[in-house]
Amino acid sequence: MTLTLHSAWRASAPYRVRIGLNLKGVAYDYVPVDLVAGQQRSEAYHALNAQNLVPSLVLEDGRVLTQSLSILEWLEETRPEPPLLPKNPLDRQAVRAMALLVACDIHPLNNLRILKALSGLGLDEPARNAWVHRWINDGFVALEPMVARYSRGYAFGDTPTIADVCIVPQVYNASRFGVDMAPYPAIAAAAARAGEHPAIAAAHPNNQPDAAK
Amino acid sequence: MTLTLHSAWRASAPYRVRIGLNLKGVAYDYVPVDLVAGQQRSEAYHALNAQNLVPSLVLEDGRVLTQSLSILEWLEETRPEPPLLPKNPLDRQAVRAMALLVACDIHPLNNLRILKALSGLGLDEPARNAWVHRWINDGFVALEPMVARYSRGYAFGDTPTIADVCIVPQVYNASRFGVDMAPYPAIAAAAARAGEHPAIAAAHPNNQPDAAK
Repeated sequence: MTLTLHSAWRASAPYRVRIGLNLKGVAYDYVPVDLVAGQQRSEAYHALNAQNLVPSLVLEDGRVLTQSLSILEWLEETRPEPPLLPKNPLDRQAVRAMALLVACDIHPLNNLRILKALSGLGLDEPARNAWVHRWINDGFVALEPMVARYSRGYAFGDTPTIADVCIVPQVYNASRFGVDMAPYPAIAAAAARAGEHPAIAAAHPNNQPDAAK
Repeated sequence: MTLTLHSAWRASAPYRVRIGLNLKGVAYDYVPVDLVAGQQRSEAYHALNAQNLVPSLVLEDGRVLTQSLSILEWLEETRPEPPLLPKNPLDRQAVRAMALLVACDIHPLNNLRILKALSGLGLDEPARNAWVHRWINDGFVALEPMVARYSRGYAFGDTPTIADVCIVPQVYNASRFGVDMAPYPAIAAAAARAGEHPAIAAAHPNNQPDAAK
């Protein structure tokens, strides 16, 4: 089956799906969506994704999957090896809680459409940066003890899970915005360890065809 | 096992967990957290939930579960009947995509901490209401065709799923803020149908011990 991923190199949500596909060893075609140029609002892209957001994963029969975490759960259910969730239900709850803390309570507050909306409300760049720092720090303060509790190399245990799938792009994003990671040694260590995994390294923004030169 | 849910009557995320617990027939003790008075930032509550967010679900052994959608997945895995997800992986993906559209791309942008932050940036009430309307409409425009495609009474099919668990509180929230539901007949119909289910009706904000008189 040939999958086609509509992606943007620096955006967190497609970065998560690239990590998941790579960890599962699933090949896919890459179609870049230029978010800065507004390509996500084109008629062609809107027909794929009515939210005008990336990613969209198109299956061979044309079916379009949206929402990164639901794509990752589908990957886990249809391609169980290697597992991206532990076996025990309470452990799975903890992994999903770490993933959702990032995916619900940090990332949506800071993505491109929100920064544009804040700009439209008259917030200048320093004020927008302060907004981004606030929500990343707010989330990382709560995430740090969870990673410290569960990590044995990766964010949970000693193999990659959907927690790493969400944390690695969020730490990349924090670095773009100059967030000081010194208060978050467990998160920083887990993200660094995960970043060395070949499948995760291959998903890095700089390794995508649409990366800025 | 006695579960204790730290909840707030009008907040979306604990409303989701109440619906899930009720649908699964799981009894729980209810501890109100007064968000308007700032009780979520108290030392006692912070020790339960480092994000200072509701809900927190405390198990009999003292273990604390956070993040509503990960609690719902845990409920589904540990108490499979009645199922809140369909069997087919692509159907499960669709249900989770609807749930996550609400839980990631609408609700976090409009909750109390964000409205307070916007107020701190100088936005008056009409501007804050416009912000809330914008993101609800933005999400509902994309959710409407999904519900229209999959609904046979409930948001997906003819029994409640985690899509309804997320949509019912979001429609309640939209109503609080005076969002016109006329453009979203499929969402409105599914939420109305779900709201008649006794387990879902029992989870309604007005039926909670901390509801305003």
